[in-house]
Amino acid sequence: MPHSVLIVGSGLIGTSIGLALRGEREVHLTDADAGRAAEAERLGAGRVWDGTTGVDLAVICTPPTAAAAVIGDLIARNVAVTLTHVSSVQTHVQADLETLDSAVTSVCGGHPLAGRERSGPGAAAADLFVGRPWVVCPAPATSAGATDAVIALAKACGATPLVLTAEQHDAAVAASSHLVQVAASALAARLLEVSADAVAVSGPGLADTTRVAGSDPRLWTEVLTANAAFVAPLVTGLARDLDRTAAALHVLASAPADAAAQRVLTDLLERGNRGRATVPVKRGGAGGDFVTVDVTLADQPGELARVFAVAAQAQVNVEDVRVEHLPGRPTGVVRLLVRPQEQERLVAALTAGGLVAAAESA
Amino acid sequence: MPHSVLIVGSGLIGTSIGLALRGEREVHLTDADAGRAAEAERLGAGRVWDGTTGVDLAVICTPPTAAAAVIGDLIARNVAVTLTHVSSVQTHVQADLETLDSAVTSVCGGHPLAGRERSGPGAAAADLFVGRPWVVCPAPATSAGATDAVIALAKACGATPLVLTAEQHDAAVAASSHLVQVAASALAARLLEVSADAVAVSGPGLADTTRVAGSDPRLWTEVLTANAAFVAPLVTGLARDLDRTAAALHVLASAPADAAAQRVLTDLLERGNRGRATVPVKRGGAGGDFVTVDVTLADQPGELARVFAVAAQAQVNVEDVRVEHLPGRPTGVVRLLVRPQEQERLVAALTAGGLVAAAESA
Repeated sequence: MPHSVLIVGSGLIGTSIGLALRGEREVHLTDADAGRAAEAERLGAGRVWDGTTGVDLAVICTPPTAAAAVIGDLIARNVAVTLTHVSSVQTHVQADLETLDSAVTSVCGGHPLAGRERSGPGAAAADLFVGRPWVVCPAPATSAGATDAVIALAKACGATPLVLTAEQHDAAVAASSHLVQVAASALAARLLEVSADAVAVSGPGLADTTRVAGSDPRLWTEVLTANAAFVAPLVTGLARDLDRTAAALHVLASAPADAAAQRVLTDLLERGNRGRATVPVKRGGAGGDFVTVDVTLADQPGELARVFAVAAQAQVNVEDVRVEHLPGRPTGVVRLLVRPQEQERLVAALTAGGLVAAAESA
Repeated sequence: MPHSVLIVGSGLIGTSIGLALRGEREVHLTDADAGRAAEAERLGAGRVWDGTTGVDLAVICTPPTAAAAVIGDLIARNVAVTLTHVSSVQTHVQADLETLDSAVTSVCGGHPLAGRERSGPGAAAADLFVGRPWVVCPAPATSAGATDAVIALAKACGATPLVLTAEQHDAAVAASSHLVQVAASALAARLLEVSADAVAVSGPGLADTTRVAGSDPRLWTEVLTANAAFVAPLVTGLARDLDRTAAALHVLASAPADAAAQRVLTDLLERGNRGRATVPVKRGGAGGDFVTVDVTLADQPGELARVFAVAAQAQVNVEDVRVEHLPGRPTGVVRLLVRPQEQERLVAALTAGGLVAAAESA
């Protein structure tokens, strides 16, 4: 692992890297806005860079559109042995780098998959990357030493490095993140076209499926534009599948017994089942590893604490929890996910504790 | 409220209605499968019907396709003053009823919006309907007395009655539930077409947006078929929006500065924001009413209990909670939603309790 690190761009990601390396490495901070670098220093992420000291590794945490130019400038000034960046889209940064005159053997792209709703150094956290994937994207020209330095950086921040080409990375985030954003936004946008009765009768399905539709339109226009080549065919594929489904539904509206049209629906739903089964909703695999216990409780301070105190006393580890509030009522349902062998014990303990609990298959 | 009730179909919904009315009303139970009616009786939902005793209200909880025939038979036998059903799609049951010879002034449709993953009398719960909408759907011929009897039933079960025409009901659930199922299934199905890298780099967005894609394909083929007339145009609208988006992305893949194409993306994302803002994610309105506190903790028994015990001691009511496990790591992040004025107090209390907590704007 490189001993000295220069962080260019002291926002959420840059400052969090500085905090994660705190005390272990010599960290220099800089930012186009000197006030942000000073704030990052005040937070303990490192020292403001003097503008000349050379380092083992430079980490470019500027907006992606600026990354290649900053890297070119630092190479020209011979400031760093190895250089990396943290762009959420990799291929266009790599293409920009390939237009540089200087050799880019010392540059290896990277993308830590971590973030928060807030930005800026004030939102930074030393544990932001813990347990998260950090994709490491060497270009064909990248040296093994540069790749190893970025892998070591990822590990030093507590992340799990995953080496992919820039193309593999951009294809992966196109499906797992960018397509999801488009689908959720398009679904939520439909709600503007229907009567208010729809949301009045809605449940947790609508809330979950549209959650990411709350994201920042300006930021996401940039991200989708940067990765348009990989996102476009996925959106086309989604639209075609929905076109087929709509055609089948139009047939069924007048001929509900039409077997071919019904098969189109069943096929979509079954493919949806199989696709969903690939999503890592829990450590160690799909949600089927766990079972559910529902607890009905009054919505007041201390009620959730009671539930978890009982669970802890019964030596049951709650794997996941979900609170469903009931509109206009002072009660809610808390859904707990636990291992199958702990379900019965938890229900018994909760019931003994005076709580209304019921076991569900997951 | 009717004094005597006959429940036809002693599954999850029928048995739960019996349990909700327990002790307050005379409840008779029947089922095509006599064993299920006997089990519902054993659970305390009422008494198995003798097949002749007349009642004030018959509640048909059979599958929707059987509802109209059962109602016609009960009317012919003059068993009940008022009759209702609990079908998730209303217009086709109403159309079936209108083909009956007998007058249907005594029939008023209904749909309690409640359910569980499990079915059958064993999954029933007295509080299944508490705080839930119960849509009441009088037909043009329905008498005021019949409508009032169903409203009273909904209230007696703790639900919130909402009177809509059958068409308004079916249009509402088409948007809030059936379209959501189609969109989530189609999105999850895309995962079968991409490399495994995609799920390796995925986060909570993909998991949330595809959650309902795990639903039963057989059941959902039936539901979508029954409501095809209302779902079809919504799916067509969604597909068109995605087609437009795909076309813009294809332009941006080769011309990233194309302003018109960028506007198509921004417009979609902004409409998504506005649509999402209509979704009731919390009591009293949208998620903006609350702010977030993130807590990093070891994933072992008792850790969540510690968090909630500290919150309760600080007199902070946790409005919602979400556990995010980190793949392959013994740590997780717990995100708590609280009222803005309680955020600072909670962070201070958690930090004083030795936990790593950070405030976020929601």
